[in-house]
Amino acid sequence: MELYRPLTHPWTMKPLPAVAYARQHRPRFIAELKEFVRFPSVSNQPHHVRDLRRCASWLAAHLRRIGLEHVRVLPTKLHPIVYADWLHSRGRPTLLIYGHYDVQPPEPLHEWTTPPFDPMIRDNNLYGRGACDDKGQLFTHVKAVESYLRTQRALPVNVKCIFEGEEELGGSPGLSSFVNRNKAALRADAAVMSDTRMLGPGRPALGYSQRGNLRFELEVRGPKQDLHSGNFGGAVHNPLQALCEIIAGLHDSDGRVAIPGFYDNVREWSTQEREFMARTGPKDKDILRDLHASGAWGESGFSLYERITIRPALTFNGIGGGYQGAGIKTVIPAKALAKISIRIVPDQKPHEIEQKLREHIARITPSTVSTRVRSLAFSNPALVNRNHPALRAAALAYRKGFGSWPVFLRSGGSVPAASIFQKALGIPTVLMGFALPDDHIHAPNEKFHLPNFFRGIETSIWYMAAAARMAQRRPQPKSRGAFPA
Amino acid sequence: MELYRPLTHPWTMKPLPAVAYARQHRPRFIAELKEFVRFPSVSNQPHHVRDLRRCASWLAAHLRRIGLEHVRVLPTKLHPIVYADWLHSRGRPTLLIYGHYDVQPPEPLHEWTTPPFDPMIRDNNLYGRGACDDKGQLFTHVKAVESYLRTQRALPVNVKCIFEGEEELGGSPGLSSFVNRNKAALRADAAVMSDTRMLGPGRPALGYSQRGNLRFELEVRGPKQDLHSGNFGGAVHNPLQALCEIIAGLHDSDGRVAIPGFYDNVREWSTQEREFMARTGPKDKDILRDLHASGAWGESGFSLYERITIRPALTFNGIGGGYQGAGIKTVIPAKALAKISIRIVPDQKPHEIEQKLREHIARITPSTVSTRVRSLAFSNPALVNRNHPALRAAALAYRKGFGSWPVFLRSGGSVPAASIFQKALGIPTVLMGFALPDDHIHAPNEKFHLPNFFRGIETSIWYMAAAARMAQRRPQPKSRGAFPA
Repeated sequence: MELYRPLTHPWTMKPLPAVAYARQHRPRFIAELKEFVRFPSVSNQPHHVRDLRRCASWLAAHLRRIGLEHVRVLPTKLHPIVYADWLHSRGRPTLLIYGHYDVQPPEPLHEWTTPPFDPMIRDNNLYGRGACDDKGQLFTHVKAVESYLRTQRALPVNVKCIFEGEEELGGSPGLSSFVNRNKAALRADAAVMSDTRMLGPGRPALGYSQRGNLRFELEVRGPKQDLHSGNFGGAVHNPLQALCEIIAGLHDSDGRVAIPGFYDNVREWSTQEREFMARTGPKDKDILRDLHASGAWGESGFSLYERITIRPALTFNGIGGGYQGAGIKTVIPAKALAKISIRIVPDQKPHEIEQKLREHIARITPSTVSTRVRSLAFSNPALVNRNHPALRAAALAYRKGFGSWPVFLRSGGSVPAASIFQKALGIPTVLMGFALPDDHIHAPNEKFHLPNFFRGIETSIWYMAAAARMAQRRPQPKSRGAFPA
Repeated sequence: MELYRPLTHPWTMKPLPAVAYARQHRPRFIAELKEFVRFPSVSNQPHHVRDLRRCASWLAAHLRRIGLEHVRVLPTKLHPIVYADWLHSRGRPTLLIYGHYDVQPPEPLHEWTTPPFDPMIRDNNLYGRGACDDKGQLFTHVKAVESYLRTQRALPVNVKCIFEGEEELGGSPGLSSFVNRNKAALRADAAVMSDTRMLGPGRPALGYSQRGNLRFELEVRGPKQDLHSGNFGGAVHNPLQALCEIIAGLHDSDGRVAIPGFYDNVREWSTQEREFMARTGPKDKDILRDLHASGAWGESGFSLYERITIRPALTFNGIGGGYQGAGIKTVIPAKALAKISIRIVPDQKPHEIEQKLREHIARITPSTVSTRVRSLAFSNPALVNRNHPALRAAALAYRKGFGSWPVFLRSGGSVPAASIFQKALGIPTVLMGFALPDDHIHAPNEKFHLPNFFRGIETSIWYMAAAARMAQRRPQPKSRGAFPA
């Protein structure tokens, strides 16, 4: 794959100074990204609350330094949102650039080769929690904006940046209410975010569909307190065992979710769409290679790519109970806990699925134990028309930034922001992902492939250039709307 | 229940000065027990190795101070054995006094009202890990020996003490090889240990049967590393889910172990024995009250007392996998682990049961994951004839120490020492338990009821007096045998 292409504008053939600037300053960009990754901004661990604040302040200061305006750190109920804009391209479209500066927990720590918050480069990869998801990908757009402002003192489009700190909580609760309270101020023609995967090395992808995500905790309680397993083993229903039996009852032997009515509203796709997916999407063997798994699993009648995108899934993210240390403790624990996430697709409704899960668990809970289901976070699926001008502009940008056309790819993951922007602002979100399948996002040894960092910056530069030609759907207000204090 | 009875010998009606001494020195006995409990002698946590050594040295020094002889701290492969004796009662029987100074892990720490290794008294109970299992119960015999030696400068019987540090590892591996290498030196007429339960407050019990214990770890592995549950959920068999499905497959819907052939060699007891058990043992309602459980569970056709004593049981002591912290981490973990113990009864053979478990798990493991079973420790069941003179003497001692005759009770737990002594030395073990059902052994807030500590000491004093009249089965060698260095 050829990385160094002419620095010319794709339509005017004029050289693009922003691209030249971005290439010159790569070492500094990496150093800055390392600073960014160093903050342990783990949004779902309460002891990191201050680290999130410090990270947001750092990011705001950085945006101010590169020339963005109206930079603000806006409080939410939990972790703040960082806002900045540049609105001087009269008569041109407005892009909403979204990203999240919070990260997943780094655990299990002992599986990291180098510490998660001490970013290090090995083999052209930057290792660290958040290096890829999403600090590194967010930073591609920040550096693209800087490259324009430093070389041309202007952007080809208007830009509103919104970087949140609650994405990894699931459901982006603060963002959702913030966007809904500030629809006018956030008015734009399209949103862009980089928080998804490429198809593989050198094979860029444009996301046009994401699953929603419902997150639950399931607790099983038995005896009032831990019991000696010798003295009582055989006379009491072990909560660990009951939890396992309940979990085993959530799928049938064909890998389908066994909750009655679970598939009722799942949208059936046309033969044409499924053929498009088969042509453009990853093959079963590609996915199996990425999985490093012993074999395929799941709903028959669907390719693996279909199973992880247009079909819903119920997965277990954690389970714990009793003694897990070295050796054995002969105990019957009083309780056991599992963490469950359900990925939903159009046209499943979060609250209907929640209700069905609760009813099913109540139905299969034996009388010997009690169960409690806690709902933690919900997000809707999101879907973008592949023919929208914002996506066509993005495809052109990829052609320049990566040297090849992107494939249109569905993602099995969930970025709640995309469904929030669709619902509250009525705009599509371009999912311009720069993550490789083996970047270990959410896992130990997360990394960002540095050539993709550089290509991502250039793709974002070209995207602003291409988006400038997009029809502006609504006139842009002269000044930025007022945010509530 | 009357605690202060006449200090007279049950047969001669002579006052027993040792009992008077034991009553006088109760405050000091408690202070010493607290010192003993303060050592975090957790045998299955490698970072406590030195604490076990320190605890053994403390115990040895204590035994020397009260007048026992030949006190030695004898190394094993892991945690040392403390030996001491007093062999000057020519022509009298010899008792082997057994106990263990190691304790269960204290986790989960946050559930303790006061720290596990900072023993405290509340409501006549001494709280602390090991206060009951087994430091407190072991100490009853030590204080009984002291009471005799300080008042009469002699014991009514010969005594050999053997206190090990590996009981909570399961299988007492060091003890087993030590006893087998030193059969002559450890020759005795009966063993006595206090590491079992009473039927309830004021209702002493003499154990005559224990289950064996087989301990395993079951690991399920799927993908080579943790995966993002959004990107891959639905296409890969989640190891957590597979583990739960395998665990659910170890019991049938009637609460019976579903391993083929598991019950093949389980001894069927006569109607007479089952009637004796029904008459003397705890009723279902007693056990349910102790359990604080929502309801009974397990093999139909057997009382709860039978299910936990003459029937085998397979229990899960711990399970872990994926993310267990606050919130949710949307991960499909690469592996998951469960800790399993199987309580076996006569005439099940440990290695046959192990083989059947391994075959069954291999059979029900789906092709999408791999499983590994690790065997951690094995111990045999133990059974004593209720009419043995050593048990009759113990019943008399209880009548004096507790003011009531003991019931003959089977225990569902396992003290490997009892089966080791039976097999290697050909002697019965008197299971003289002083633990209450609600003493929370192996659980947070373990405690020892102090009135039972005092009654235990007096019962041990009376036991030595009563055992002196027991027929001596083999002449005692003049000097203690030589232990290997």
